[in-house]
Amino acid sequence: MNDDSSARIVAGLREWIASATPGAKLPSTRSLVARYGASPVTVQKALRTLASQGMVESRPGVGTFVRTVRTVRPNDYGWQTAALGAPRHRTPRTSAALRTAPNDAVALHSGYPDRELLPERLVRTAFARAARGAGALGRPPSAGLPDLQAWFAAELGAATPAWGAPPAPSDVIVFPGSQSGLGSAFRALVGAGRPLLVESPTYWGAILAAAQAGVRVVPVPSGTGGPDPDDLARAFEQTGARAFYAQPNFTNPTGVRWSPDLADRVLDLVRRHGAFLIEDDWAHDLGIAADPVPVASRDDGGHVVYLRSLTKSVSPAVRIAGVIARGPARERVLADAQAESMYVSGILQAVALDVVTQPAWGTHLRGLRRRLAARRDLLIGALREHVPAARLETVPQGGLNLWVRLPDATDLARLVRDCETAGVVVAPGDEWFPAEPTGVHLRLNYSGPNPGAFPDGARVIGEMLARQAR
Amino acid sequence: MNDDSSARIVAGLREWIASATPGAKLPSTRSLVARYGASPVTVQKALRTLASQGMVESRPGVGTFVRTVRTVRPNDYGWQTAALGAPRHRTPRTSAALRTAPNDAVALHSGYPDRELLPERLVRTAFARAARGAGALGRPPSAGLPDLQAWFAAELGAATPAWGAPPAPSDVIVFPGSQSGLGSAFRALVGAGRPLLVESPTYWGAILAAAQAGVRVVPVPSGTGGPDPDDLARAFEQTGARAFYAQPNFTNPTGVRWSPDLADRVLDLVRRHGAFLIEDDWAHDLGIAADPVPVASRDDGGHVVYLRSLTKSVSPAVRIAGVIARGPARERVLADAQAESMYVSGILQAVALDVVTQPAWGTHLRGLRRRLAARRDLLIGALREHVPAARLETVPQGGLNLWVRLPDATDLARLVRDCETAGVVVAPGDEWFPAEPTGVHLRLNYSGPNPGAFPDGARVIGEMLARQAR
Repeated sequence: MNDDSSARIVAGLREWIASATPGAKLPSTRSLVARYGASPVTVQKALRTLASQGMVESRPGVGTFVRTVRTVRPNDYGWQTAALGAPRHRTPRTSAALRTAPNDAVALHSGYPDRELLPERLVRTAFARAARGAGALGRPPSAGLPDLQAWFAAELGAATPAWGAPPAPSDVIVFPGSQSGLGSAFRALVGAGRPLLVESPTYWGAILAAAQAGVRVVPVPSGTGGPDPDDLARAFEQTGARAFYAQPNFTNPTGVRWSPDLADRVLDLVRRHGAFLIEDDWAHDLGIAADPVPVASRDDGGHVVYLRSLTKSVSPAVRIAGVIARGPARERVLADAQAESMYVSGILQAVALDVVTQPAWGTHLRGLRRRLAARRDLLIGALREHVPAARLETVPQGGLNLWVRLPDATDLARLVRDCETAGVVVAPGDEWFPAEPTGVHLRLNYSGPNPGAFPDGARVIGEMLARQAR
Repeated sequence: MNDDSSARIVAGLREWIASATPGAKLPSTRSLVARYGASPVTVQKALRTLASQGMVESRPGVGTFVRTVRTVRPNDYGWQTAALGAPRHRTPRTSAALRTAPNDAVALHSGYPDRELLPERLVRTAFARAARGAGALGRPPSAGLPDLQAWFAAELGAATPAWGAPPAPSDVIVFPGSQSGLGSAFRALVGAGRPLLVESPTYWGAILAAAQAGVRVVPVPSGTGGPDPDDLARAFEQTGARAFYAQPNFTNPTGVRWSPDLADRVLDLVRRHGAFLIEDDWAHDLGIAADPVPVASRDDGGHVVYLRSLTKSVSPAVRIAGVIARGPARERVLADAQAESMYVSGILQAVALDVVTQPAWGTHLRGLRRRLAARRDLLIGALREHVPAARLETVPQGGLNLWVRLPDATDLARLVRDCETAGVVVAPGDEWFPAEPTGVHLRLNYSGPNPGAFPDGARVIGEMLARQAR
C-alpha cells in the first residue's frame, strides 16, 4: 500500500515537474500530505525517488526544487548486462562486405554490385509503374504474389530435365532477401543445437544466419573441385546431420562450380542420409562463361531446398528472394516466414516481377556477363602483375569474387589495415571460414565502383604485401 | 569404390536420358561396361537405381528404355518427417486477421485498414519520387537511413518531458515491419527457453513471434484498466522474467489505454526488477479521442524498448517500423536484425520518410481520426441494436478494434463458421489469448472495406448468436 501511494505521488509530481520552470519550488511536504492523503514518510519517500532520478534537488531547511540543470550523469546501463546475460552464441561480427567505403577508396571488399552493373532503367521504370498500381497499397499473401511465385517456379522448372519433377508455384515462398530465407530455412529445417553441414570456406552471411538460429555448424572442406563426397559422407555419418548448406554454382568466396557428377553424388548422399541440401543459388544471374544449372533441378524427392535471390542482379533496394521447398519442409519454412514477417512488401514483389519479365532483362543479363568478364579479367591481370605472391586457384566462371591465397606468413590483419590506410578496401578471407582458416586469403570483389582503379588497388596490395616480406 | 562407380554411371546416364527421346533404348550393358570401365554388376546396379527413380524401365530380354510416361507415383515426403522431427514448439496457426476475404463479404476480421483510410496520394507520389532517387539502387546502412532514424527519434523525443532523456537517432533501428522487430527483440532480449511476461489477451502476432523465438510466454491478466501491477509484480518475482511485452496505448485487441499512473507503476516495476518493458506502440497514428503518449517517453534508464510501426498508417506495402533501444540492448537487437536481414530496402525507407514528413501527413492523420471515430461509432451502434447479448467493456479511444464479450455458453467456432457462411467474416477472440481464453470474445475490426455494411454484419452476428440460444 505504502509503495503504491508513493508511486502515485511520484507520478503526480512528475507531471507537475514536466510543466514547471526549472528551479521552481515544489509544494511543501505538508501540502503534499494533504493533497495525496498520504503520510509524511510516504511523501518523503516519493521525493527521494524523484531526487534519485535526477528530477529534483533538496536543499535542507529550504525545500525541494526542480533541477535547474539537466543531470549530466553518464547513462548507466549496467543492469542490462545482468538482464541480458552472456550471449547464447557468439554472433560473428558483421562482415567487411557490408561496409561502406569512402568515395575515393578503391573498394574491392563489397558484396554488392556497383550501380553501373544494375538494370537501372528497368528498375526505375518498374517503380514508377508500381507507384500507380495496386501493389502500392495492398497486402499480398504470406507466401508471395502468385505471379512471382509462378516465375520463380518456372525458372527452376526450365532447368528441370524431362524425367524430373518441376516445382509448382505453390512450392515457392517469397522472402525479403535471401538472408531472411537462410534464417527461416535453418530455424525450420535444422533447429537450435542441431548440426548443419556447410562448405569451408562458405558464405559469411550463412555462417551469421546459422549462429543466429543457434544451429551447430559442421565444416566440410571444399576445395577447387567443391566438397569431397567422402568428407561429406563422413560428416553425415558422424554428426547425424540432416542438412547440408552449399552454393554449388560460383561458391562465394571461391568461385568454384560443382561438376554435374559432383552434384549427382551429393544428391545421392543427401538421399541416402534422409537429409536436405539447402542450395543457395546466389549467383544464378551472374554467370560469366557458364550458365548455372541448379542442383535442385535434378531433385524429385523434396531433398533440395532452393534459394534464389534477385537482390544482386535487380537492385539492392528490391530485396526479394524465392525459396523453393516441397512437402512438410515447405510448410515448416512458410510457418517460420510468417512468424518472422507475416508477408513481404507487395510493391517490391511487383517491381521484381516487372523487371525480370521485361524483354530488356535478357539483354541486360547478357551485357552484365560481358562487363563482369572484363572486370574479372582486369583484376586478374592486375593481380598477376602487381601481386605475384598471390595464388588464384580458380578463375571463376561466374559470380563477383576472386579468392586469392597469400603466403602463409602474411599478417592478414596488418595487410588489410595497411591497404585501407592507402585507400584500398579489401575483405580478409577469415570471415568466410566457419572454423579456423586453413590459409591466408583475400576475397576481392570485382563488381565494385570504378574498375579503372583495379590496377592501382592491386599495386597497393602488392606493395603492402612486399613490405611484410622485408 | 563400387558405390562411386555406380554413381558415376547413374550420373552419366542421367545426362544421356535428359537429352534422349522418351522410349529410346539405352546402350547395352556390355557397351556401358566398356564405356565406364566398370563391372557388369556395377552397371546393373546403376540401371536399377535409375529404374527406382522412375527414369528408365527394363524389359527383360529386350533392353532398358527411357520411360515414355512420366511416373505418376505420388510424391513421398515421409523421409522429411524423420529429418524434421516434431516441431520444437507448437507454432500458433496464422490468425484470421491475415486472411483475405471474398470481395462481397462483410470483412470485420482483418488487421489492416482499408485503402480508403490510407494516404494514397502521398504514398503514390512518394514512390514515384523514390523511383527517380538514389534509394532505388542503393543500399542503406544496417540500422537504417539516418534521416529516418532521426525522424523516429524526434517523434519519441517530442513526447519526452523536460526532465527526461530523449533518444538519439543512433538509438533507432529500422525494421521491415514491427513483426520482424518483435522477433528480434524477443530473440535478442529474452532468448529461447526464458520467460517473457505478456498481457492476456494480447496481440496474436506477438504470441506468434514469441513461439518462433522459443521464449516461454507468461500471461498477466489485463482488464479494462490494463494489467494489474500486483499481478505483474508477482509474475516478475515468481518467474524471474526480465522482460514484459505490452501495448500500453489502445491494446490490441481490447482497445484499453493505460493511465499515466499505471504507466509509472509499470515503469517502477521494470526498474525494480532490472527488466525491460517491450512497448509496442502499434496504434500511435491511430488515436481517435486521445493522443497516445508512449511509456518510453518517461524512460531514462534504457528500460523501455520501443516499437513504432508505419505499416498500418502509411501503407501495407511500406513495411517499415522503428525500434528504439539504448545501451547493450540496442547492440543485441541490431546484431539480430543484421543476421536476419542485413538491411532494409532503402526505397521503402525513403518512401516512409517522404510520406510522414509531408505537410499533408498531419492533415491525413486528422481526417483518419474522424473517419475511424465514425466507423467505430457506426459499428458500436449496430452491435447495440443487433447483438444485445454482446458486451463492449471498453469504447476504444484509438486503434482499429472492438473487443466484445459474448455469453459464456456461446459455441464460438460454430458462430464464426455460421457468420462466414452468411458472408460475414469475424475473428474468434481465442487467438489473442496466450493461454486458455477466459471468456468468449470476438474481435471486430472497424477499419475494413465498406463500412456501410457494418449494420448488416452486426445483424448476421446477432442472428447466428440467437440461433444458438434456441
